Parts: sequence; C-alpha cells; structure tokens
Amino acid sequence: MTADPTRFILVEPSHPGNVGAAARAMKVMGFVDLVLVAPRYADVLTHPDAHAMASGATDVLAAARIVSTLVDALDGVSYACATAMTPRDFGPATHAPRALLPSLATSTHRIAFVFGSERYGLSNDDVYRCHACLSIPTAPGYGSLNLAQAVQLIAYEWRQALGGFAVEPRTAAPTWADGPALQGLLDHWQRVLVELDYLDPAAPKKLMPRLLQLAHRVGLTTDELNILRGIARAIEKRTATSPPGSGTSDPRY
Amino acid sequence: MTADPTRFILVEPSHPGNVGAAARAMKVMGFVDLVLVAPRYADVLTHPDAHAMASGATDVLAAARIVSTLVDALDGVSYACATAMTPRDFGPATHAPRALLPSLATSTHRIAFVFGSERYGLSNDDVYRCHACLSIPTAPGYGSLNLAQAVQLIAYEWRQALGGFAVEPRTAAPTWADGPALQGLLDHWQRVLVELDYLDPAAPKKLMPRLLQLAHRVGLTTDELNILRGIARAIEKRTATSPPGSGTSDPRY
Repeated sequence: MTADPTRFILVEPSHPGNVGAAARAMKVMGFVDLVLVAPRYADVLTHPDAHAMASGATDVLAAARIVSTLVDALDGVSYACATAMTPRDFGPATHAPRALLPSLATSTHRIAFVFGSERYGLSNDDVYRCHACLSIPTAPGYGSLNLAQAVQLIAYEWRQALGGFAVEPRTAAPTWADGPALQGLLDHWQRVLVELDYLDPAAPKKLMPRLLQLAHRVGLTTDELNILRGIARAIEKRTATSPPGSGTSDPRY
Repeated sequence: MTADPTRFILVEPSHPGNVGAAARAMKVMGFVDLVLVAPRYADVLTHPDAHAMASGATDVLAAARIVSTLVDALDGVSYACATAMTPRDFGPATHAPRALLPSLATSTHRIAFVFGSERYGLSNDDVYRCHACLSIPTAPGYGSLNLAQAVQLIAYEWRQALGGFAVEPRTAAPTWADGPALQGLLDHWQRVLVELDYLDPAAPKKLMPRLLQLAHRVGLTTDELNILRGIARAIEKRTATSPPGSGTSDPRY
C-alpha cells in the first residue's frame, strides 16, 4: 500500500487511549502521518493505553512526531482543515465533510486535518491558522463525538473522496435464473399445487401472479431455483402414491 | 429530536468500553435502539467503563436490552445488515455502505445493523440470518476497525442516507466584493505601487493581472477589500510626506 501524504494533527490530546485509537482509525483508511501538538503526556506515544488502542497500528505511533505549536505541525502543509465550527467573530467557512472534501481531493494541495483537545476543542487562534472548518453533522442536542471517532469519520470521508478502497467479494457472483427458467419453475409448481388441491384451476384467483411477484422480488439464483424444482418433484412423488384428497388443509390464499 | 427506529445489535461484545462508545456513536447520529446479544459481562450496561465511554449517551445504555440470541434481537426487524463479509460458502451479498444504504433508506423496512464480537466477528449462522452484508472499505493489509468505530461509520453513513443533519453556520454569510469594487481596489493599488517605485508604468509586465488573479482566487469580502484600500491610503499618506526614492527596495516581481 502506498501511504497517502495527508497529515492528521491532534492538538493537546489528553487521553493516550484516544491517540492510539486515532492511529488505528487513520491506518485502516491508509493514512500514516500523525503529528501531536503539546500532548498532555509527553510519553503518550509509548503509553500502554495508546498501544492497546492502536492495536496493529503501533507503527503509526512509532513514526508520529510531537511539536509544540500548530504552526510547527503545519510544515509542508498548504491547506489545513480544522474540525471545528467557524469562530463566532469570523474565520474560515464551515463545511460538512462530504460537501468540501471531493473538491479538495482534486486539488494539488498538501492537506492536513486538525483536531482539538477532548475537553476544549480548538482555540480560535488555531482555527484561524486553518483554511477551512469541517463540521461532522450530528444529532441536534447531542453532538459530542469522541476524538478518535471524529478522526475515523474524517479519515473515512477523505479516503472516499480520494477514490476509496474496493470491497473485494470473497465469493463468486451468483448465476441468476432467467425469465424462461422462472416460468418453468412456476409451471411446475402450478401442476403440484393443483395436485395438492391447493390451487383450484376453475378459480385460480391471483395465486400464480402473486408467486411470480414474490420470485421476482427475491431474485432467484439457478441453485435456488433447482432446490425449489427438487421440492416440487418430491411432492409429485409423494402425491402419486398418496390417497387422493390427503393433501394440505392449509387455509386458501 | 425524533429518534429513528433503526436498531443497532452487538453480538457477544467483550469490552464494556466498546459498548459505551457504541452507544455514544449511535446517539450523535440520532439512533437510540441498542440490543446486546449474549454479552461477555452480564452487567455490561452498568459497568463503569461503559458509562465512561458513553459520555452523555448513558440514556441509550439505560434503555438497551440484553437477549440471548440474534433471532431474539430481530423482533420487529424486517431487514438486517450484517457488518461482515459474505461467508466463503454462500450468503447475502457484500456491499459497501455507500452503495447499499441509499436504496435501503427509501424502503419501508424496519432496519437493524448487526455487529460481531471484537475477536471473532459474526458467526456464519448469524450472517445467514441477515439480508445483506456491509463491508467498510479499508486499507488493503490493515482492515482492523475497532467495534465502536465501525458502529460510528455505519451510523454516520445511515444518517447521511436518511437525509443527514444540517451543519448550521454560526456566522452570517459574508458579503463578497463584486467586479467593480475589485477593479477599484486594483486601480488604487496600481497608483500606490507606482508611487512606491515598485511598478514601472513604462514596463508593467504582468503585475496587475497577477494581482487580479490572486484577488479572484482568494475571493475578497467587502470587509477585506476595505482593509486593503485602507492600507493603500495609509501608504499614500506616508509617501506624500516621504522624500522621493525612499520606497521599497524589494526585488521586483
């Protein structure tokens, strides 16, 4: 995997567990450049909680840097997105990630995403150092995202904007039954249902069209169609040897 | 806020912290119906780690139910999505969330999202009980999402598919400077730059078109335009009283 140069910056993170979880959240989306600004614990990158939450992403922690100001963290970055709302007085405009990131993905900027501390978020001064504000749309009245989960959502949306990863199917694509095969099944079941006294040929009502609609909605594979024909054959065998009139007593359709 | 009836089901979760974080992840996206199937700790819903990670979402924990099988958890659910890959032998097709959820959002189904345990994921038997498999696209070689982060991404994608929440701007929309105002600014600065001996009227090269391009790219507000005119006026005042030739000695454009 070629790592994307996108940088993730955590400003004054308090909880080592969150730093580890953020590293994992980045790595599952293919990002590895992590910079911490003035973390609460100087040894956060080697803290046991950070390692436990990083799971297989301890390489991201090992390669992370610690700097003392946001300006230091922005070396080489030409466009920084604050995960924050625009300050009340003024500042970069606030966007939903899905509204801004696609256009940013086609730019030639070197991008950073900047996250504030768990308790206080980002200071206005740090937001002013960014080019845009990103706000993850959350429920009115409860917008409290955990830091690592905010990192996860932004990393995911950014990866999607960059073209995404494929979902590789593990199983072969099924062979879908075609129209004539389906009609053959329906004709077979119609004979069986008449034999079972469930379908009255003199008053068929809408039974067969209803079963056809059900089959269309389900979308049968050829394997499944063969199972249903096998069941129909098994009923035919049994009814051929049963006394007439011993079929189902289910209520009619 | 009207809660959405979507259910989130965690099958055999091990870590109370993850259950709490999942509750928080659901609630920020407006979902409150949580069911646990055979959790490792029977008291997980009142466990201190669960409460700590739930933060303001302890109401979701308080309302959650514990049942013993996935079938029990699916009461009232007509369409269940397993967050899992299709089992190797057969099973419901695997989709990326963004490929499946929009069509599901327009259906009339009562939906559940089903998550497996941290260590083993979902059993094949439980996947067979679901209507679709959802796979979050992750980096090749490191697809290890934390349980609560998987819940966060699915809750977010489902909320987006249902129409999303608005990002409410806190600041008034700025008034953008129009073409004539911009031309007035450029004319003003052109006079100042000539006065400063920075622009040679006999050999202007592309300086003014370059500054116009810069102004277009930045997109000036009327407030910002007024600042730049104010600076130009301040320079005019000073140059009017300075000896000629004492302007900038910067290298030329």
